[in-house]
Amino acid sequence: MLSLDYANCLSDRVGNHGLDPAELDPAGDAAASIAVLTRKLARTRGTGWERWRELAQGPMRREHVEGVLSAVDRCRGKFENLVVLGIGGSALGNIALQSALNPYTYNLDATVRNGSPRLFVVDNVDPAYFGSVLRFCEQNGGLKKTLFNVVSKSGETAETAAQFMVIRDLLKKHIGADYKANIVAVTDPKAGTMRKICDAEGFTTLPVPEGVGGRFSVLSPVGLFSAAMCGIDINALLDGAASMDGPCSREDLSRNPAAMIAFLLCELGSSKGKTNHVMMPYANGLYLLADWFRQLWAESLGKQVDLSGETVYAGFTPIKALGTTDQHSQVQLYREGPNDKVFCLLEVETFDGAGGDVKIPTGLGVDAIAYLEGKSMTALLNAEKRATEYAFVESQRPNFTIKWPRIDAFHVGQFVYLWEVVTSYAGLMLNIDAYNQPAVETGKVATFGLMGRAGYEKHKFAVERALSPTARVIRD
Amino acid sequence: MLSLDYANCLSDRVGNHGLDPAELDPAGDAAASIAVLTRKLARTRGTGWERWRELAQGPMRREHVEGVLSAVDRCRGKFENLVVLGIGGSALGNIALQSALNPYTYNLDATVRNGSPRLFVVDNVDPAYFGSVLRFCEQNGGLKKTLFNVVSKSGETAETAAQFMVIRDLLKKHIGADYKANIVAVTDPKAGTMRKICDAEGFTTLPVPEGVGGRFSVLSPVGLFSAAMCGIDINALLDGAASMDGPCSREDLSRNPAAMIAFLLCELGSSKGKTNHVMMPYANGLYLLADWFRQLWAESLGKQVDLSGETVYAGFTPIKALGTTDQHSQVQLYREGPNDKVFCLLEVETFDGAGGDVKIPTGLGVDAIAYLEGKSMTALLNAEKRATEYAFVESQRPNFTIKWPRIDAFHVGQFVYLWEVVTSYAGLMLNIDAYNQPAVETGKVATFGLMGRAGYEKHKFAVERALSPTARVIRD
Repeated sequence: MLSLDYANCLSDRVGNHGLDPAELDPAGDAAASIAVLTRKLARTRGTGWERWRELAQGPMRREHVEGVLSAVDRCRGKFENLVVLGIGGSALGNIALQSALNPYTYNLDATVRNGSPRLFVVDNVDPAYFGSVLRFCEQNGGLKKTLFNVVSKSGETAETAAQFMVIRDLLKKHIGADYKANIVAVTDPKAGTMRKICDAEGFTTLPVPEGVGGRFSVLSPVGLFSAAMCGIDINALLDGAASMDGPCSREDLSRNPAAMIAFLLCELGSSKGKTNHVMMPYANGLYLLADWFRQLWAESLGKQVDLSGETVYAGFTPIKALGTTDQHSQVQLYREGPNDKVFCLLEVETFDGAGGDVKIPTGLGVDAIAYLEGKSMTALLNAEKRATEYAFVESQRPNFTIKWPRIDAFHVGQFVYLWEVVTSYAGLMLNIDAYNQPAVETGKVATFGLMGRAGYEKHKFAVERALSPTARVIRD
Repeated sequence: MLSLDYANCLSDRVGNHGLDPAELDPAGDAAASIAVLTRKLARTRGTGWERWRELAQGPMRREHVEGVLSAVDRCRGKFENLVVLGIGGSALGNIALQSALNPYTYNLDATVRNGSPRLFVVDNVDPAYFGSVLRFCEQNGGLKKTLFNVVSKSGETAETAAQFMVIRDLLKKHIGADYKANIVAVTDPKAGTMRKICDAEGFTTLPVPEGVGGRFSVLSPVGLFSAAMCGIDINALLDGAASMDGPCSREDLSRNPAAMIAFLLCELGSSKGKTNHVMMPYANGLYLLADWFRQLWAESLGKQVDLSGETVYAGFTPIKALGTTDQHSQVQLYREGPNDKVFCLLEVETFDGAGGDVKIPTGLGVDAIAYLEGKSMTALLNAEKRATEYAFVESQRPNFTIKWPRIDAFHVGQFVYLWEVVTSYAGLMLNIDAYNQPAVETGKVATFGLMGRAGYEKHKFAVERALSPTARVIRD
């Protein structure tokens, strides 16, 4: 079980920059308010955009796991490369699961992959990046042995659509009529542009379930298919998520980790000006999980208008950092710069994956570093974590720790579900809609205009007018 | 030449969240102050911790390039893997150069490497990460064909020391007496723990030059050796840096890109509350250059005390983002959340590397996405960038663009040198010491204490006292 230690968010540890412990009094306002919000979440659970709460249990889970595993079965042994085409919520979860649960050298080393394909999650339209992955696949296994997993609910996201058009054309040229066996689409089960394409061309499809937004979709086929293809135990992942449901449904603030994190972050944000939220894992494998968190936190809570129509410019800025690495890059600022942050440290008790721990050998015999001899690398890593936690407390910088017994699918599932519930609590606390993303529209239609899509000419003119050339340029 | 367009930082574009154009008046206070600071930098140039200004020209450059290229010559053809052991300023530059200037598939594909070794910059003591890289090298080429580039000025950085102890032991066991041919150290040329080890064991060494701090060292042997080993044209890199020296030395604010960026960021920070600085390249290759920037900006400017001894908590929080990817993750927050950011967008005009551009084919014939047919991926990427810039302006979010003609060593050199000079200006504007990092000490001695280093017992007790267990834990 993941555990949460939040002592360093309170004023007895970090002075006036922390919360008064009295705020957490079981008989106080916060506790009463959490109980109300918990009952509210229980009522809306599984409805509207809160269907993500049902992904890890019951009929949705059974249907998804069955569909994913049978698609994986049909693909088994046939592909050397798996390329996910998606962006945002259609990519960040896939990347996070892979980097947390497979070794760093997975793509480099066939013995590490043990029969699973290499994985590329190509979440951009940078031609150098996209082109290099395609060339690599052509020359290593070939396109015939490359499976493309297109992930797009609508099929109209420009980046994914462009990538899809490129690979469909390539596959048809290289493979001919059989090319559809090289595409598995995760898309809307009923409607939309990608649905129509899939039906017309006969691709295998898996559903983006109704009522599950992109940033809440990692535990649906969106994240599960590529994970299962790469040997990740998706049932353990879902078991972990399901096991977090009880704790995150408790009305008692002091025993509900999701409610506690949401309360601490919102309260430190509103009453103490800590609007930057740094997630800092002490484990390379968890670093890209912080990117998944960044989307969840930024896109859900960053809202100009609240539910009563007031302009509030709500939200917090999520920042990812890596321990110990960023001790040598960011910690100087984190301790001495503006006190505008809360730090979520992730600590792993045991590294018992493939290679186990690394022992620092004896025998060098140099005084200044002799204290390291015979110690384990995990001990050093976690001593540095504790030392940093101490240094933050010394500088009155609020922080909390989520401790992982180990990094495995079960605990990744717990972590994902925990933060999704944290986000739903925070949305209620901020009184905003955590499930929309209205600000993305402007850039989308401006892109249509600039790319010459019929009917969007006025958006092109608006861009050109707003960004007309000026003399505010230094060019030589 | 890189160009800078800063029109979107001014109030005629972003209203009250931008600067009044009158502030930039050539006859005004800012311009006069910049002229004074420029003369001050000219006087201190090449002295104290400002010796980094001389890395790209003159005798230091000649000596470094000669030393690096002759070490590379001796190693040529002998190694399949190059593992850099370093952290912070001894790693971030190496990572940035590699990811900007070699293809994404460099480590995966021998044909892309063209005789150069794979590169691993192992900047952490995560045992799973470090162990997986070592196992990979043992099984691919073997340790005999793995070169370790230890980068540490003192040799006492715990992470690098621990890694070094592990690989020295491994090499001795696998290779025997010849193991020293597999280590090239970049370290202090005269004194320190690593210097003593190198002298005693007979490793090849290259200098960390005197007066060049870690975060300003990428254009010294610290960054140049691994770059040259991986086929990067280090002379072009230094030529780029040298070519930026003239523009960044101009007394005229309106023609000095470094002074202009520093002025905009410091002024938007102090007078408009924009203390978060987002670097958002529209190019995957430049994304990790933003990590290099993060250290430079955070560690140089994040200072509690100014030069007159006042407590100021100076500094800005650098944040990295990636276009278009983060449009689907962060832009909702960036447009609608707290208006506390300035965005530095990086745009690349031409992707003319290995594979050139990617063309989006015609022939799918689906109305909703037909506008993409026949366009280039670069056109889509840069339309998205312009659309986002427009969306930021619409929401009154100040931003500026650094435009790259292409991504190559020359322009990376320009970019690095530009931001180093920006940082030196910003240090003067904030009236802080941009070259120290006093806050790192607390964590360092606490780690010594926790790891049992003799003489540091009191620090262990201090940690245990400050972080003694409480009931503020949720564990099941």
